[in-house]
Amino acid sequence: MGVPNLQVALDHSNLPSALADVKNVGDVVDILEVGTILCLQAGEEAIRCVRALYPDKRIIADTKCADAGGTVAKNCADAGADWMTVICCATIPTMEAAAKEVEEVQVELYGDWTYEQAQKWLDAGISQAIYHQSRDALFAGETWGEKDLSKVKKLINMGFRVSVTGGLDVDTLRLFAGVDVYTFITGRGITAANDPKAAAQAFKAEINRIWG
Amino acid sequence: MGVPNLQVALDHSNLPSALADVKNVGDVVDILEVGTILCLQAGEEAIRCVRALYPDKRIIADTKCADAGGTVAKNCADAGADWMTVICCATIPTMEAAAKEVEEVQVELYGDWTYEQAQKWLDAGISQAIYHQSRDALFAGETWGEKDLSKVKKLINMGFRVSVTGGLDVDTLRLFAGVDVYTFITGRGITAANDPKAAAQAFKAEINRIWG
Repeated sequence: MGVPNLQVALDHSNLPSALADVKNVGDVVDILEVGTILCLQAGEEAIRCVRALYPDKRIIADTKCADAGGTVAKNCADAGADWMTVICCATIPTMEAAAKEVEEVQVELYGDWTYEQAQKWLDAGISQAIYHQSRDALFAGETWGEKDLSKVKKLINMGFRVSVTGGLDVDTLRLFAGVDVYTFITGRGITAANDPKAAAQAFKAEINRIWG
Repeated sequence: MGVPNLQVALDHSNLPSALADVKNVGDVVDILEVGTILCLQAGEEAIRCVRALYPDKRIIADTKCADAGGTVAKNCADAGADWMTVICCATIPTMEAAAKEVEEVQVELYGDWTYEQAQKWLDAGISQAIYHQSRDALFAGETWGEKDLSKVKKLINMGFRVSVTGGLDVDTLRLFAGVDVYTFITGRGITAANDPKAAAQAFKAEINRIWG
């Protein structure tokens, strides 16, 4: 079992505040995510700026791409992203088109996806999935539970590298002890902390304590 | 049966070329769409520029929003969009959160959605759907057929206003004769024509011939 990565999601509504936050934590975390909200607000410029600040970090464009996979992926790669996300209800041709243009594609799991679909993604060579607690579902009072963990484990057993995200904090990480999580993703768990750098370090320390 | 709207999708990878195209056809078409590719490339600036050029037109931000519906919708509305799209695999709370911030939300149909889900969207007060031929599916050789038409008709019978899009040209419109389509959406069918304004006028003339 590997040590999970820590990924910070920059889900800001404007680029300057995202850059101010990433400057504090970019050297602590393993992966930098240009979040969907930021992609839609600042466009490719957001990816370009984060790449300029961190030329050697892994950068993910969280486009949640549903169509025109080739064009969206090429644009993301041109701007400096290594990986990008596609939404689970995208067609296989869309996912395949995207996978040709970026290093790797990650499937974002929302709504009523099935393991049968997941097997098709694997068959198409797409082996990363992101298991979500929807932000809006969290607002509606839902939280992590055994149902989520069993889905995450099943995806890992199928052969996916699985990232998990949605309302994670340092105390939530222990729920995943013994599970071969690929990456923990948090946005406001780091960026909204009083001391974002200390928050990122606390996440890293707890990950190392459990999986190291 | 009403006369369907004509919507131009600005799916450009850069803002200047999108603005050059919309300037040619903005007064001919009924609805202006800031396409997903353009949203991801130019950010909110794209919506703001199109709104500045066409203060009185209906503008749609094709965000295909999957999560954080409230934030994405507020950002789109602040930039000047009237309506925005959500992806069909978004959760109902995401759709409802978006619907609070923009005038109307449209559900983009991709992948394996069901009529049972569609009824839930209606029950949540979301009564616009966009029936797609996926761009990547079109590249893979698929095209409009009876199967698509019967799905469009069923959605209309359920109570949706249905927009259709994907590989439409002037000759394709007659396939929908007798069907109460709300809006025909085309991107390159207009913007990639030798004379985009003439192409938009030809779409409008054919719509009026069939439904007028």
